[in-house]
Amino acid sequence: MRIAVVAPSCTLKREAAEAVEAIAARRGDCELVIHPQCFLSDGHFAGPDEARLSALREVMADPSVDAVWFARGGYGSNRIAEAALAELPRAARDKLYMGYSDAGFLLAGMHKAGLSVAWGPMPQDASRGDHGLESGEGAINRALDWLVRRDASSLEAGLQAPAMAFNLTVLSNLLGTPLEPDFTGIDLLIEEISEHLYAIDRAMFHLTSSPAVRKVARLRLGRVGDVLPNDVEFGSDELAIVEDWCRRSGIQFGGRADIGHDAANRVVPFGARIP
Amino acid sequence: MRIAVVAPSCTLKREAAEAVEAIAARRGDCELVIHPQCFLSDGHFAGPDEARLSALREVMADPSVDAVWFARGGYGSNRIAEAALAELPRAARDKLYMGYSDAGFLLAGMHKAGLSVAWGPMPQDASRGDHGLESGEGAINRALDWLVRRDASSLEAGLQAPAMAFNLTVLSNLLGTPLEPDFTGIDLLIEEISEHLYAIDRAMFHLTSSPAVRKVARLRLGRVGDVLPNDVEFGSDELAIVEDWCRRSGIQFGGRADIGHDAANRVVPFGARIP
Repeated sequence: MRIAVVAPSCTLKREAAEAVEAIAARRGDCELVIHPQCFLSDGHFAGPDEARLSALREVMADPSVDAVWFARGGYGSNRIAEAALAELPRAARDKLYMGYSDAGFLLAGMHKAGLSVAWGPMPQDASRGDHGLESGEGAINRALDWLVRRDASSLEAGLQAPAMAFNLTVLSNLLGTPLEPDFTGIDLLIEEISEHLYAIDRAMFHLTSSPAVRKVARLRLGRVGDVLPNDVEFGSDELAIVEDWCRRSGIQFGGRADIGHDAANRVVPFGARIP
Repeated sequence: MRIAVVAPSCTLKREAAEAVEAIAARRGDCELVIHPQCFLSDGHFAGPDEARLSALREVMADPSVDAVWFARGGYGSNRIAEAALAELPRAARDKLYMGYSDAGFLLAGMHKAGLSVAWGPMPQDASRGDHGLESGEGAINRALDWLVRRDASSLEAGLQAPAMAFNLTVLSNLLGTPLEPDFTGIDLLIEEISEHLYAIDRAMFHLTSSPAVRKVARLRLGRVGDVLPNDVEFGSDELAIVEDWCRRSGIQFGGRADIGHDAANRVVPFGARIP
């Protein structure tokens, strides 16, 4: 099992790369190929659009690569997603793609294009992350258990396939774009990190007002971490907000989901039947 | 000229209400009726949805009211916009509606419903506002000059009617909702406040990926204030970001626009021919 790591959004930290390589070495069941592009830096991004796109296209087209693992989120995969999906090489269709957060732009577009994608932990989670993530080894092993042997214990436990998972803000920002997948009959899991409650309420308005999103089978709420302070108390919490917009829009609220920007984040394969 | 002030989003500050009343009294050409709902407070909002909706419906249906002026932005008008537009009373069609920022949800839906709306300064701008706004009297007079006598000197100087103006994040969050107006042939002005550059880039991706938005005649960029700091330098600025997404999407970039969350903010009547 050969797993290529590329960074379509932000730069992978060296210590995270070393930690994830050590974990893979201890496991001995997979070869991790961390593309040098992961360590490029160009302002906010892991290199210019051209470099990120080129590395992604390279590993997608490589028949020796079994899985493509997105190094981390941040922001930027939307800038190259459409180009990454143009004239797909045959080898791109024989792989699994995994990531979460900003990588949701790619997961959406790739799933729409017929590729196999899954929401799940990323290499950056191996070291202390951006949001107080302290213990990433479990997350890395959970991701690798799925990538290497489709271990069902990695999965979000309540999935009613077909499912999808997204960061709420990422999902809101891909609605109406060429990356928007078909939500019909989907168990839709969302989570959020580092946003104000008013922005979460606004994004839920946007999401649940979409006729396409109203076709989901149900919507479930993962963890909402690191909520930014409001000037005054917002007057509600994330659970009440999501329940309220589900009620208003006629979307079935399916309760909480076991995903989030944290070490406990679980795997959600898109669309596919769960083994 | 009787102007009703209601607050579909956040609570109007008492000192702003007093300042704007004093300005109106000095002018002597209009009667300002500040609805008591403006001072309600319910968590983030100027009263519960029901109270904000009821006050708005009341002044919309009042034949003695010539114009409805939204007290301030913040967040929340989207929560009542659809209900406000249901079964419109005849008197609602004989008025002008003005506001900006979060009020853009209402401006969009009202314009779509055939009402006369304009982007322009709001009563809260009379006092020192949330974003370092120091001198609001000019903004208030600019708004009243338009409301009372359609004074062309209040207008954004470069308008090629028909035009619309929106806060970028508000516009992004109304795309695909029932509030989305027809952008065909529009001079579309956008501005932003208190966002990270990466979020502005992401919202521009969302905006310019919309086939409906690509029908605008051109897009112009107002002021982008109080940009939140990035972890690392983003590597670009708001002008380069907007020009880049216009180029990518085939939308004509029309240069800068004289609008923003500040005292220099100007009036943009939606759709209508400029007198």
